[in-house]
Amino acid sequence: MSERNNSGLAGVVVGQSAIASVESSGNGLSYRGYDILELAEQANFEEIAYLLIHGRLPTEVELRDYQSDLMRHRNLPEALKTVLEQLPPETQPMDVLRTGCSALGCLEPESDQRTVTSIADRLLASFASMLLYWHHFHVNGQRIETMSDETSVAGHFLSLLKQETPDELTRRAMDVSLILYAEHELNASTFAARVVASTLSDTYSAMTAAIGALRGPLHGGANEAAMDMIARYATVEDAERGMHEALSNKQLIMGFGHRVYKQGDPRSPIIKAWSNKLAVATNKTRLFEVSERIEQVMMREKGLFPNLDFYSASTYHSCGIPTAFFTPLFVIARCTGWAAHIIEQRENNKLIRPLAEYTGPTPRSYIPIERRH
Amino acid sequence: MSERNNSGLAGVVVGQSAIASVESSGNGLSYRGYDILELAEQANFEEIAYLLIHGRLPTEVELRDYQSDLMRHRNLPEALKTVLEQLPPETQPMDVLRTGCSALGCLEPESDQRTVTSIADRLLASFASMLLYWHHFHVNGQRIETMSDETSVAGHFLSLLKQETPDELTRRAMDVSLILYAEHELNASTFAARVVASTLSDTYSAMTAAIGALRGPLHGGANEAAMDMIARYATVEDAERGMHEALSNKQLIMGFGHRVYKQGDPRSPIIKAWSNKLAVATNKTRLFEVSERIEQVMMREKGLFPNLDFYSASTYHSCGIPTAFFTPLFVIARCTGWAAHIIEQRENNKLIRPLAEYTGPTPRSYIPIERRH
Repeated sequence: MSERNNSGLAGVVVGQSAIASVESSGNGLSYRGYDILELAEQANFEEIAYLLIHGRLPTEVELRDYQSDLMRHRNLPEALKTVLEQLPPETQPMDVLRTGCSALGCLEPESDQRTVTSIADRLLASFASMLLYWHHFHVNGQRIETMSDETSVAGHFLSLLKQETPDELTRRAMDVSLILYAEHELNASTFAARVVASTLSDTYSAMTAAIGALRGPLHGGANEAAMDMIARYATVEDAERGMHEALSNKQLIMGFGHRVYKQGDPRSPIIKAWSNKLAVATNKTRLFEVSERIEQVMMREKGLFPNLDFYSASTYHSCGIPTAFFTPLFVIARCTGWAAHIIEQRENNKLIRPLAEYTGPTPRSYIPIERRH
Repeated sequence: MSERNNSGLAGVVVGQSAIASVESSGNGLSYRGYDILELAEQANFEEIAYLLIHGRLPTEVELRDYQSDLMRHRNLPEALKTVLEQLPPETQPMDVLRTGCSALGCLEPESDQRTVTSIADRLLASFASMLLYWHHFHVNGQRIETMSDETSVAGHFLSLLKQETPDELTRRAMDVSLILYAEHELNASTFAARVVASTLSDTYSAMTAAIGALRGPLHGGANEAAMDMIARYATVEDAERGMHEALSNKQLIMGFGHRVYKQGDPRSPIIKAWSNKLAVATNKTRLFEVSERIEQVMMREKGLFPNLDFYSASTYHSCGIPTAFFTPLFVIARCTGWAAHIIEQRENNKLIRPLAEYTGPTPRSYIPIERRH
């Protein structure tokens, strides 16, 4: 696309949405009017999932029912387990989720009885099951039980991953992270989901597209890239030196700046505080200190602030999450926002079909193949 | 989205593209400068696939090599066959292709050695294999051989479907149809592919998203909907009566009008001529006559012209294609255009991330759950 048009639709308003406000009120991000700071302090992730998908906070009874529903939907059909077993050990975990989501759409297709909200619940409940069933099958040769007694999505993920009951601090750190990642207006994966939904295709198609978009290093892949960078430095001095070298080599540093936020990402201080809390609790402070130094260098040298992805990296690492599962966790959080946007798109749908300015060859005659050289 | 903004980006230029010109020259559609009329008369589909993906028409040697490459890539890995066998007989064929595409991305992931062009070749060559392996496994309990001696994509599809050598007229009708469906600028599926590609995600993710978008009845699903309508009428008089009734009930009639073309779809007369030719050759003219009457009613009553989807329905039916495979054929054609757009997006990439106007609740305080009713 041209300089004139190669804007990636940056700053272009393509429609309305009542789900998240970004940079237009309060601390810079709210979900359905509730400030992200308050939500991250006081709510749990299932409340947020309910808020996004159903449009309002649940009552105590509704939340209990919702959590029970999600717990019931953690099982995997045998056919899906067989599909997952076919995906090689070296597969990118995001490709496992993309394929699992698409395959579930064949086994449990959308219908009048199985609507977008029940599919959203099903996927939210079973993404961890898919990923970790596949993981343990290949790593330990074990067909794990995907049900668990954990009442939260965060606890379910951790207990399946570690095959033991997680501690409360780790569980809550993951819970807060899922809240922070749940929704973010028309980011690329959500926009991809809406483009697909706008053809009146099914929920699984829209979700599968969104997973594929989130997989990219310019989107969900950023927290994994940030982790790889942070892990490279043994000390804060190493980090200082390494960052200067990387910047002078014009390397792209992931986890900094944001297309929408110009003054700072309101989610970053929240996850940074959690990263620090976990570092202190586990008495392993190197990653946090290295991260802080990188943050200082980036501000000093480039005037760039960390976004949510940056301190999510050290937070996840402290929680014992393998780096390759960072973006899949993003899927588990964001599928709630995707569902909300699919519902909103359908409520007042119009096919999303833009135009391109044609810059190719002017009209020319077809040359029969025997006269081509 | 609002009335003001709920435009589905209609008429909005979001970037440049050198692949297809729509309504800006000649007869209304050209691929890389070559008029669609000339291409449909003189070229074969593999030439068009090469033209779209490589940017120029192949020489005789290049075309022969390209066709041999495609023939070699018709096999399916055993793991993919096992995946396909898990998808129930009642699965929508588009969901089979979406899942097959995603699963192949796990088995043969993109890499420095396996690039977007080789993945495009692989998918173009094997989509028919995936679909028809799954089809025969469930319908006939048969694990078919997916290789064939047919040199064309059209011939391969027909020979796998029918398990016999297709006749030349049917083969060429399918070939022309694939040419007509190969590319169409920033339609919803292509735009979905570009949104995904803009995160620098992999080719399979972009293709999988595009399949999911094409699946929708407002996009690729239209030819199947047109067929269902046409098949309903036993005579032209039935069609006349039924159409008046449908229009007075304000039913949406698929296969007419177009977001971009205002004067007529240049592809429609081409496929209409083929529909007629097949009707005459097979001595089964009812579907064509009913279609023509529907066309007349729609022009007389609504001033709407048929688009490519409308006469594709009767054409495919005459070729012996089950209705549920019409949109999968669209995938096989359009994956060439998708590949061209993924390549173009990467050449000058910027993350596609628009904004929404926030219309949700104004800032409000979080209410602790025990105080909600």
